Amino acid sequence: MKKMFFVLVVLISLSSFAQIQRVEPPNWWTGFKDQDLQLLVYGKEIGKTVPEINYNGVSIEEVHKADSPNYLFIDLSISEEAKPGKFDIRFKKSGGKTEVFKYELKARQKPAEDYVGFDSSDVIYLITPDRFANGDPSNDINSSLLEKTIDRNNDYARHGGDIRGIINHLDYIDTLGFTAIWSSPLLINDMKNASYHGYAMTDFYKVDPRFGTLAEYKELADKAGERGIKLIMDQVANHVGIEHWWMKDLPFTDWINYQERYLNGEKTVYSSHQRTTNQDMYASEGDKKRMTEGWFVDTMPDLNQENPYMANYLTQNSIWWIETLGLGGIRQDTYPYPDKEFMSDWAGAIMTEYPNFNIVGEEWSYNPLLIRYWQEGAPNKDGYDSNLKSTMDFAMQANIVAALNEEENWGSGLEKIYAGLANDFAYASPSDIMIFPDNHDMSRIYTQLGESIPKAKMALAYILMLPRIPQIYYGTEILMNDTAKPGDHGLIRTDFPGGWKNDSVNAFTGKNLSKVQKEMQTYLKLILNYRKNSEAIQQGETIHFAPENGVYLLSRSSGNEKVVLILNKNEEPVNLDLERFEELGLGGQNLKNLLTGEKMIWEGSLALPKMGAYIFTTKL
Amino acid sequence: MKKMFFVLVVLISLSSFAQIQRVEPPNWWTGFKDQDLQLLVYGKEIGKTVPEINYNGVSIEEVHKADSPNYLFIDLSISEEAKPGKFDIRFKKSGGKTEVFKYELKARQKPAEDYVGFDSSDVIYLITPDRFANGDPSNDINSSLLEKTIDRNNDYARHGGDIRGIINHLDYIDTLGFTAIWSSPLLINDMKNASYHGYAMTDFYKVDPRFGTLAEYKELADKAGERGIKLIMDQVANHVGIEHWWMKDLPFTDWINYQERYLNGEKTVYSSHQRTTNQDMYASEGDKKRMTEGWFVDTMPDLNQENPYMANYLTQNSIWWIETLGLGGIRQDTYPYPDKEFMSDWAGAIMTEYPNFNIVGEEWSYNPLLIRYWQEGAPNKDGYDSNLKSTMDFAMQANIVAALNEEENWGSGLEKIYAGLANDFAYASPSDIMIFPDNHDMSRIYTQLGESIPKAKMALAYILMLPRIPQIYYGTEILMNDTAKPGDHGLIRTDFPGGWKNDSVNAFTGKNLSKVQKEMQTYLKLILNYRKNSEAIQQGETIHFAPENGVYLLSRSSGNEKVVLILNKNEEPVNLDLERFEELGLGGQNLKNLLTGEKMIWEGSLALPKMGAYIFTTKL
Repeated sequence: MKKMFFVLVVLISLSSFAQIQRVEPPNWWTGFKDQDLQLLVYGKEIGKTVPEINYNGVSIEEVHKADSPNYLFIDLSISEEAKPGKFDIRFKKSGGKTEVFKYELKARQKPAEDYVGFDSSDVIYLITPDRFANGDPSNDINSSLLEKTIDRNNDYARHGGDIRGIINHLDYIDTLGFTAIWSSPLLINDMKNASYHGYAMTDFYKVDPRFGTLAEYKELADKAGERGIKLIMDQVANHVGIEHWWMKDLPFTDWINYQERYLNGEKTVYSSHQRTTNQDMYASEGDKKRMTEGWFVDTMPDLNQENPYMANYLTQNSIWWIETLGLGGIRQDTYPYPDKEFMSDWAGAIMTEYPNFNIVGEEWSYNPLLIRYWQEGAPNKDGYDSNLKSTMDFAMQANIVAALNEEENWGSGLEKIYAGLANDFAYASPSDIMIFPDNHDMSRIYTQLGESIPKAKMALAYILMLPRIPQIYYGTEILMNDTAKPGDHGLIRTDFPGGWKNDSVNAFTGKNLSKVQKEMQTYLKLILNYRKNSEAIQQGETIHFAPENGVYLLSRSSGNEKVVLILNKNEEPVNLDLERFEELGLGGQNLKNLLTGEKMIWEGSLALPKMGAYIFTTKL
Repeated sequence: MKKMFFVLVVLISLSSFAQIQRVEPPNWWTGFKDQDLQLLVYGKEIGKTVPEINYNGVSIEEVHKADSPNYLFIDLSISEEAKPGKFDIRFKKSGGKTEVFKYELKARQKPAEDYVGFDSSDVIYLITPDRFANGDPSNDINSSLLEKTIDRNNDYARHGGDIRGIINHLDYIDTLGFTAIWSSPLLINDMKNASYHGYAMTDFYKVDPRFGTLAEYKELADKAGERGIKLIMDQVANHVGIEHWWMKDLPFTDWINYQERYLNGEKTVYSSHQRTTNQDMYASEGDKKRMTEGWFVDTMPDLNQENPYMANYLTQNSIWWIETLGLGGIRQDTYPYPDKEFMSDWAGAIMTEYPNFNIVGEEWSYNPLLIRYWQEGAPNKDGYDSNLKSTMDFAMQANIVAALNEEENWGSGLEKIYAGLANDFAYASPSDIMIFPDNHDMSRIYTQLGESIPKAKMALAYILMLPRIPQIYYGTEILMNDTAKPGDHGLIRTDFPGGWKNDSVNAFTGKNLSKVQKEMQTYLKLILNYRKNSEAIQQGETIHFAPENGVYLLSRSSGNEKVVLILNKNEEPVNLDLERFEELGLGGQNLKNLLTGEKMIWEGSLALPKMGAYIFTTKL
């Protein structure tokens, strides 16, 4: 009898101590402007307990039960008096028992103003981490996860790239001249297959062990920071992976969209992808709902950001990562798909906390009106302000490809970028918009340009000279392509040569790179490193001249520094009469050809011996 | 000796009375808000005289000499005390002689508020007058003019159509259901050839005698007005014909652009047609200048609206025609080519004088950002406000053609009009924008749509249902086409059958029209006459549903009147499930199929037996 009693006590104690499985965010900080914090507590029947805190400066404002008894949402207020430290949250049960959870308020590492986001002074290197470099082969396979294999011969399997791989090659990225890194998501995707891409998260607070640890993610951020390289985190507020931990026990009946269908095992409703319903004054209510509430695919439940607990959860999660890693920016996936009011609040909350931060939202639209709509400060008729500093210029990307691929005719060819850039008049802040030759979801620029090296060079030079924030996908510098199967996602995200031990080609060292690959590396390195110290390109005045006879000139200038980019689409040599460009005030000045190092005097006419980009600068 | 003296006196007197060749505007009115009037006086050495006026309420504020001695510009102030009547302007010469010119101030015929411009309650019939109907063969040839022939077999020669031809067929236009007429210019084009199109004016105050007289133009306006049809005048502020009377004696050295080249017989500088320079923050000064100051063609000198006398001249000319004819609107040619500050002042002056008037500017751009920029009320970053109520929706025109010609796929087909119409969120006033299937400068819609009758019907139904001001080109109702030489201007502007005596086909009476031509006439008549009394279409709410399976639904509603347009691109019969459209609130209601007259109840599903437009209305 005594023994049985003892066993019972132990069991009760064990079950009681095992009860709290999660408290999220797992820690917080003192000193935020917003003193509210809403904890999600998850544990068996935790909803039936009453929490108590006794810590100076911290008070429980309200406690919310969820529809599931296994959740509790606690609204804390953290006043200015609160000091960093650990405190107990005591969960009192109806039977008089209490469970205790230690929670930590950390001290912030640096002032909020020092979280400086990427801007037009930067050039961003975009990495698909599974495909860049395998720095730690020991983490390649994790048998506790659902996808247990790696297979470099399968474009949709994991290949083993990881955070250590990026850390190992920071010097390469830095030397090339990049000043920011955007890695696609590194959080855990414990999905049955195709988990490599990272956009189906199953825990918003956990690094995927196949990519590494939180410590390694911090190490990456710190080591990048030491080099002045900003780290941009790829976040997803729209959806999760279907294996997300909360999918087996959803807190509310409206935690995800079309939740009832999901619980009934019925086929979900997919997003209509009619992104214009976000703006359209005439859109039907049904179409609007289906756009934002429909799922991307069966394996990615669509989150309901109109549930205020979900909204808090996502916002706090973003702030947790910014503060934990000392981020230099966020890239938000599928921006027009979540509830847009939430997205504005989310970005607003972050920007209020970190005034110099930056966020770029992915709106894959070729319509400048939409690119415009989503940028902070657009005088939208519906009063919407996204609080989003940066949007993505898919319109200009398409214009660049068209400009280079099309024959020169009225309305085609270079005219496309000339008229396209003119649209800047309509943007609240053109230089805060991101431009790119391609990205992880698009055919590689070299493929898009029919594997023409001069055209690829022109595209890159133009992108790097624009009043924009340029982003370049890893491997562009060595002409990586998907020409064999254009647009194939697996192929687009090909392994970077040299990222794996025993790779026969090594782009980091140059081993076995072809001559043209090496030339492209050198070309990019030259422009990137010039741009890094160029006031003119980073924030100077812009003047461009309407294309004539297949030649287009764009100039950037700041103070004494003037930089001129000439794109020449002619195969034959051209002698460019400089008279038309008189207003640039370059007449008689000494200039350097940035790409050849040659000096010249700007007068009379200029010989453009072949198709390509020519860059001249007054910085000798 | 006595005789000689007598002869001399007569000669001097004659020359002195013949001296004043023009005073423009040829008359003015009392009672304008703007009390200033600037008279252009032209006559031999008139610049050497001093003018005097002695008339109650009229005073000379300032007199300006021009660079040519044969011009005088007189600034008058016409106060509220001025009564309608004639008065003398006495031009005193240095020798003591005086020349007298009688000038008239007329009484205004109706209050300024009664000049009501075209709006979304209207549908505009666009006419090329030389090609519509020859109502007065006696005016076909005028031997005093430079182009002395007519030749109906030559698409670029004059064909004899005239104002009398339009007057004669007002009943046809009215019965079809049009409520406004825009005729391309009727002012004199005394040019050597291709004078039929009207856009090379040689006198801003004279009707082309081959089109008729000022009295006939007034008769057209009056008779149209009696039927409630608004008359829209096509004006050109950008350029004149090279045979314009002032080209032989230009008042100022900067009256036209590139004037020195013209006077030296050098080749002119052409407009770059880079219309984006009007908005582009980065455009070079040279490109901006070349856009607005360059000539269209050698035979059309580009006016310099930055010369303030020219600016006054053009503005007063527009007001003179509005007041003389009682116009219901102006269509301004080549809107982005003149100086844009002038164009804003010009439109502003007119709209101040006639608050309910309307002006539409021609900006041939497929870029919604530009369509947006030119409309009054757009919150442009550069602070520009055009004062222009209406712009032209070339973007939507192209979307309609693409929507109907393209296969249904993601991003193509009907999606083009669905996403295109969504752009309305960005316009200051979408329903004040003009939409059209084609016009006098574009391939005919029937040709653009590959001579598909169901597609032509869908295009027209859609245009007539949109929250826009529709404009339809003459002959669209009988499927006129330019399929033999698509885009050929002469062919686009083919003679309207029945407009000429002995035409074997007569579209006015229906004689020898084909079955499909008659069907199209009936089809348009039905929709136009419904629209004429439809609050829902003219100014109702708009809802549309994303296209699915080749079917797109647009609804307009106002009070109890609901109108539903369904475009069905399927060749095969479709059974449309109505559940998705529940929010229209039509469930169980009786509706009439506007095109067949059949009644139906809106419930369950709807049979769409073939490709085409279906229109249902709650107005039984």
